[in-house]
Amino acid sequence: MKKFINDVNNVVKEQLEGVARAHPDLVKVSHDPKYVYRADAPVSGKVAIISGGGSGHEPMHGGFVGKGMLTAACPGEVFTSPTPDQMYESAKKVDSGAGVLFLVKNYTGDVLNFQEAAELAHEDGIKVQQVLTDDDVAVKDSLYTAGRRGVGITVLAEKIVGAAAEAGYDLDKCADLARKVNTNGRSIGVALTSCTVPAHGKPTFDLPEDEFEFGIGIHGEPGRERHKMKTADEITEMMVNAILDDGPYTRTVKEFDRSSGSWVEKQLTNEPLKTGDKVIAFVNSMGGTPVSELYAIYRKMDQMLTAKNIKIERNLIGPFITSLEMQGASITLLKVDDEMLKFWDAPVHTPGLKW
Amino acid sequence: MKKFINDVNNVVKEQLEGVARAHPDLVKVSHDPKYVYRADAPVSGKVAIISGGGSGHEPMHGGFVGKGMLTAACPGEVFTSPTPDQMYESAKKVDSGAGVLFLVKNYTGDVLNFQEAAELAHEDGIKVQQVLTDDDVAVKDSLYTAGRRGVGITVLAEKIVGAAAEAGYDLDKCADLARKVNTNGRSIGVALTSCTVPAHGKPTFDLPEDEFEFGIGIHGEPGRERHKMKTADEITEMMVNAILDDGPYTRTVKEFDRSSGSWVEKQLTNEPLKTGDKVIAFVNSMGGTPVSELYAIYRKMDQMLTAKNIKIERNLIGPFITSLEMQGASITLLKVDDEMLKFWDAPVHTPGLKW
Repeated sequence: MKKFINDVNNVVKEQLEGVARAHPDLVKVSHDPKYVYRADAPVSGKVAIISGGGSGHEPMHGGFVGKGMLTAACPGEVFTSPTPDQMYESAKKVDSGAGVLFLVKNYTGDVLNFQEAAELAHEDGIKVQQVLTDDDVAVKDSLYTAGRRGVGITVLAEKIVGAAAEAGYDLDKCADLARKVNTNGRSIGVALTSCTVPAHGKPTFDLPEDEFEFGIGIHGEPGRERHKMKTADEITEMMVNAILDDGPYTRTVKEFDRSSGSWVEKQLTNEPLKTGDKVIAFVNSMGGTPVSELYAIYRKMDQMLTAKNIKIERNLIGPFITSLEMQGASITLLKVDDEMLKFWDAPVHTPGLKW
Repeated sequence: MKKFINDVNNVVKEQLEGVARAHPDLVKVSHDPKYVYRADAPVSGKVAIISGGGSGHEPMHGGFVGKGMLTAACPGEVFTSPTPDQMYESAKKVDSGAGVLFLVKNYTGDVLNFQEAAELAHEDGIKVQQVLTDDDVAVKDSLYTAGRRGVGITVLAEKIVGAAAEAGYDLDKCADLARKVNTNGRSIGVALTSCTVPAHGKPTFDLPEDEFEFGIGIHGEPGRERHKMKTADEITEMMVNAILDDGPYTRTVKEFDRSSGSWVEKQLTNEPLKTGDKVIAFVNSMGGTPVSELYAIYRKMDQMLTAKNIKIERNLIGPFITSLEMQGASITLLKVDDEMLKFWDAPVHTPGLKW
């Protein structure tokens, strides 16, 4: 294992120290428990948006804390859920009284721990809501979660809902918007190589030199299938078709009911993309794939979507939700309306995303 | 070789097609000869800043074309110099009459080809100047160039001089500023892995699983020395010390004299960094190293500089001058004054850098 690390037990701690030193104008770092938060939080009257999850996906989430995006982010150890005290303490720290929205990727550990934090925050009189992301069309159930995994759409949700909170949306409107982003988004990822979790010291899985894994998760979970290596165009076709061919997807999610202080079930459905739709297209590197190769993927994706009369209104291209140094890429397509576009275009000022 | 490519002969062409599709609001692409240029060029009254070099270092240079940075960029094939017709044709395309500054990394092929293009442009009545970057403290001479190689400072020069051109600096003032940036900048890089040039199909060099290369160039040129793998802190110490210990460095460069239409020699000197200096610190991924690990490097670098009373005024952290999918990192320190800081802070709007 060759990485820029010191002690495998201090990887996240030392990276957070680097973040604190690099961006004191934007963020502060709490070390016990660990969370990154806006330097100017709490921001009067503004809903706080908090996300988190295992480390190893940087810049998500800590790199997205700042004006116009997240208010706080709670990093676990690499590929390991953060604990409830992280979310609970960060919520207390950044809540302005306008409430806290937890944006949570659908992995069992993350979901349970954020739920517990939500209950603790509610008991303290903090207005709280939780919305899950579950956009990965590769699998329905995996080892790591019940239902689809939350992947690339999380980045777009953090940007869009973060801007809405900045613009004065209240907690319920922020939650509605987050739900809308998630139920209009779909993602698929591929891996060309594995990655190595520092604490394990060896690659998470073996992938022969002439094969790639289709439908990979961001923790190196198994994909849908393995294939002999193909061209960029062929791989992109498989990815885009996996998204376009994904039919209506309905699932039951738990959301917090503040009046009763309990969790209620809600059914949500993603409708398939169709001709005439407008999308934000997000082509993401898993970490080890250089941005140049993402443009080859973008080229073919754009050709395919144009042929289907699906218009790319905006795009995001680069390493934003990664799996350490894994070579690979993911595509996220988010069907957008004017509300989402307006908040996408709004200014953002974070270590990892700025415009 | 596993990459997102189709035909090894079309790698750059197809990536440029992707860029053109992704960023039509910012850039246009000429395919014969190949160059990327600002969608709104020529910009009335503004000096044009043109750079270029082998591909494989993205987002540099094509990703830095746009408002506040480059006016055009000329990509060669991967790790191969562009040809004079690319620079010459791009200069004709984007010159507003205010002249063209060629910002050229010090590699023999690049230097000769940009010189020839400068002469052609001059014969056409275009006001032209050329400034070299040569900031790599690792080696004095290498296989690829006479003198030091141009590396990370090029990104900072493109940002700062691009902003100055936007603010109305004339050609000579832009050239002076570019020279000042270069003679106040120093860089050093390390590689943990090799990279694979698509046309070769196998790694440029072999690096055992327990070794890293110190002082690597961006084309995988040999470094100063190989070492057994070390911790992030130890490697960062070697890098920062290589920059801090670099004494005055004097070299002779050729610059274009427009009155005589010929090249004249000029001596330039970098003074060592000293206590009390202010710097922009740029921690760069060579492509395959994830941004999380860059923060471990930043942490140690900041500790060392703070101890020397050298103040980091601004920073840039991420993959900006890469070597395909190589794992590794570089540090660039630029001693700054108020003029440089003002232009560093000015707005920039390109595919690869935005604020």
